[in-house]
Amino acid sequence: MKKGLFITFEGADGCGKTTQLRLLYEYLTKKGYEVVITREPGAAGLGEKIREILLNYSGEVSDRCESFLFLADRAQHIDMIVNPNVEAGKIVLCDRHTDSTVAYQGYGRQLPIDRIKMLNEIAVAGRHPDLTFVFDIDVEVSMERVGQNKDRMESAGREFYNRVKHGYLELALQEPQRIKVIDASKSINEIHADVIRFFEDFQKI
Amino acid sequence: MKKGLFITFEGADGCGKTTQLRLLYEYLTKKGYEVVITREPGAAGLGEKIREILLNYSGEVSDRCESFLFLADRAQHIDMIVNPNVEAGKIVLCDRHTDSTVAYQGYGRQLPIDRIKMLNEIAVAGRHPDLTFVFDIDVEVSMERVGQNKDRMESAGREFYNRVKHGYLELALQEPQRIKVIDASKSINEIHADVIRFFEDFQKI
Repeated sequence: MKKGLFITFEGADGCGKTTQLRLLYEYLTKKGYEVVITREPGAAGLGEKIREILLNYSGEVSDRCESFLFLADRAQHIDMIVNPNVEAGKIVLCDRHTDSTVAYQGYGRQLPIDRIKMLNEIAVAGRHPDLTFVFDIDVEVSMERVGQNKDRMESAGREFYNRVKHGYLELALQEPQRIKVIDASKSINEIHADVIRFFEDFQKI
Repeated sequence: MKKGLFITFEGADGCGKTTQLRLLYEYLTKKGYEVVITREPGAAGLGEKIREILLNYSGEVSDRCESFLFLADRAQHIDMIVNPNVEAGKIVLCDRHTDSTVAYQGYGRQLPIDRIKMLNEIAVAGRHPDLTFVFDIDVEVSMERVGQNKDRMESAGREFYNRVKHGYLELALQEPQRIKVIDASKSINEIHADVIRFFEDFQKI
């Protein structure tokens, strides 16, 4: 049986991670791997119901409530989608995971990072990504790329996104074996080539 | 302005706490207090949406996901219902709260109590009940009382409910100032009289 893998795609809005996830999916599928694409928040099943609440609830949602809903989504995602597929020998490609929470909530919104990491640990119950790509990009460039979401980024502010960017780089320094930083200002094909190189290097270990 | 209060009603299924909550509500309302009735899980608003997920989702819900959904419900409930009403000088009567989680998950299901308490602390963000009634009852008696829910109690098992009962008593020993244990094998009127006596004693402090 092939060894399953859990690979996460991380970075600020507009960094191109979803595009790169799909390109790696195509590459790996052609190579004969069994690959599953998923995402957080809002993976298939219960995650969609939770995402619906977050998007459609007309009243105010408290910050801590929102955090716990994300953690509920993550726990369900790990138990019902990530673990069964990795254990079946498949490669799971996931759009955002724990590092997003640390980068956005911890560094971006400046909530206590130790607490966020501790809650993440409870949610994932020992399942950590084998490999993580962080697509690093300047705030100005990502704002150009996001198009209609630019307003949302503007309202969060450049300072916020600078802290998110810095947060991802800080995490990569803490876990260089797992987290590979890719210059996301390059062309899509160049970035894809970097992703494949990191993936192949990882497979050699 | 009257001082607001947060009072919680706790105990195993069939202990009569919901009946006693309504009786105290009537008593306090007649005395001229402004009183709000609420519950966990599934308070009005977002809590109902979360409760819907827990009750109606057709697939399997992971244990940790369920715990986080309860915590999300609790955080929202504290921020949007309990705090505003207590701060407005009202008396909030709540059917189940943090002690239920410790008694059922911690003592009943034997999950780590320290972790449950720590997660509860995050969810409540400093808001603790001023007064808590635990309606203590023998498992056999509560099983007789719950009627059609007896099957559910049977399937959880007498051992489970004995641990829940013990858990509540243990919590009352740890916090005798806040938690008042009431013998719930007495008649509804006798129990109501005990509730009022504890409430009046508390008001004198």
